Amino acid sequence: MSTARVVRRVAVFGGTHGNEMSGVYLVKRWLQNQEAITRPSFLTVPCIANPRAVERCRRYIDVDLNRQFTQEHFSMDFPPSTAPYEVHRAVELNKKFGAKGEAFDVIIDLHNTTSNMGNCLIIGSSMDSFTLQMVKYLVQRSGLVCPVFLTENTVPQLEMADSKRLGVHGISLELGAQPQGVLLADIYLRHERLVHTCLDFIHKFNQGEVFPPETLEVYRILHVVDYPRNNDNDLSAMVHPELQDKDWHPLKPGDPMFLTLDGETIKYEGDSTVYPAFINEAAYYEKGIAFWATQKETLNVTELQVKTK
Amino acid sequence: MSTARVVRRVAVFGGTHGNEMSGVYLVKRWLQNQEAITRPSFLTVPCIANPRAVERCRRYIDVDLNRQFTQEHFSMDFPPSTAPYEVHRAVELNKKFGAKGEAFDVIIDLHNTTSNMGNCLIIGSSMDSFTLQMVKYLVQRSGLVCPVFLTENTVPQLEMADSKRLGVHGISLELGAQPQGVLLADIYLRHERLVHTCLDFIHKFNQGEVFPPETLEVYRILHVVDYPRNNDNDLSAMVHPELQDKDWHPLKPGDPMFLTLDGETIKYEGDSTVYPAFINEAAYYEKGIAFWATQKETLNVTELQVKTK
Ligand SMILES: [Zn+2]
Ligand SMILES: [Zn+2]
Repeated sequence: MSTARVVRRVAVFGGTHGNEMSGVYLVKRWLQNQEAITRPSFLTVPCIANPRAVERCRRYIDVDLNRQFTQEHFSMDFPPSTAPYEVHRAVELNKKFGAKGEAFDVIIDLHNTTSNMGNCLIIGSSMDSFTLQMVKYLVQRSGLVCPVFLTENTVPQLEMADSKRLGVHGISLELGAQPQGVLLADIYLRHERLVHTCLDFIHKFNQGEVFPPETLEVYRILHVVDYPRNNDNDLSAMVHPELQDKDWHPLKPGDPMFLTLDGETIKYEGDSTVYPAFINEAAYYEKGIAFWATQKETLNVTELQVKTK
Repeated sequence: MSTARVVRRVAVFGGTHGNEMSGVYLVKRWLQNQEAITRPSFLTVPCIANPRAVERCRRYIDVDLNRQFTQEHFSMDFPPSTAPYEVHRAVELNKKFGAKGEAFDVIIDLHNTTSNMGNCLIIGSSMDSFTLQMVKYLVQRSGLVCPVFLTENTVPQLEMADSKRLGVHGISLELGAQPQGVLLADIYLRHERLVHTCLDFIHKFNQGEVFPPETLEVYRILHVVDYPRNNDNDLSAMVHPELQDKDWHPLKPGDPMFLTLDGETIKYEGDSTVYPAFINEAAYYEKGIAFWATQKETLNVTELQVKTK
């Protein structure tokens, strides 16, 4: 049996990336009508995480905000004035939602991807029973198919430093496929439903409901695979049509992976089957990521109840 | 019987919009291997139309290049130094490809859209037999379904001033759905095939082949429909799920058109059936366009042969 502290404050972030439109428009709407996301047992605060990027409908102004939630930045009271806008913003958000501020219990961060990842739930740890039980609740009760992407990894270079770290618990709802700068009604409605299902879970948790032990299937990150590139570091190949949109499907040794600009197939030559995700995500070209290779795992989720004093 | 002058110079533009990736990568490749697009009877020149926007993977730097090919700019030798980058670029392109330069015979301009428009062919006039016969050839011989979008209109505000105007004849190949900043192999291959089919047509034309009279089904622009907006001019509704991706399908009076952020359906209340195109195109949010309303028409295409001296 695990316990966790009662939840008093939940933040819902949209526009951590300014051109991911369903989170932006849900949060804009909830800022006008905060009652829609309140529950009797806790406060929910909507927030446009990167307002300048939202205004310009760009992913970011200077650097990717969703990689700035580092211990270094969390320790700052005031970043140097020359620091990128998003460093200032991460420090500001930490002062409001993080340990230097009101210390929010749960961060729900809304994202979109151009990849065909469906209703992906992203979590950073396999150890946090509260978040795992919330994820299991989404899988069982949202009425939506929800693959779970686990970014926990021992390789420091793969550290995410994303906005979920502001809270005690956190989850990203990464819905796709949606082009940057486009609002798809279907995705907006699914994003809305997932947020409400999270809030339902939290309210039940606060009221003392016991969540039984469970197992949870997740896709754990292994490594990234970049596009083949030429001497100028520009693309020399594209995601193969047989791999495109096949997020969460097995990629087996010998399967087509890339197609060169000249029309030649490049096969996957790894030793073992992997499960790609974030295939052909627009924002990852500059990061050198054609897709994430993941492995399928089953986690044990311990029984959970709210901690009583 | 119509005649047109023999074609000596063809330009293939990619990156008129810097984040439309299949044209960008086809042209980059052809710049390395121009033979792939040469034909015995004419010269083909590939060109990255907006190189700075391509470098930054943005639609444009200052203003939309594809609206700068105006008579005013065509008359300029040197724009004022304070003019937007794209005005300078339009003048530069005119000096190379247009009337102030080598006066290219045909401009083929490669575009992508986030709308589900398939292999759309865009033409500016119903009067140019050469272009109409080339379009008919693409429809019949490319092996691809190619809806034809006709931007000819008597309303001055709907003037396109696009890069096709640089040439004596011109066509845009507008392929979708593809997110901005994403290269989809399938679309790249279709773009490539359409360009080669254009070049095949031109070579046959130059060799004296007679193209018989035909009819051609086109979608002629009527007017634009904007998103419902609030007092801040921000979106208050999204394209309805039943309209999303239904480019070229009839939209009848009473059909669902938008869904408000609060979940209410807004119906199409026009008098007659229209055929929407460019539904939910990312680049058109700032232009105030949720979609173009078009009407279906059948054009007569006159017989065509190369003009012999
Ligand atoms: Zn994002
Ligand atoms: Zn374009």
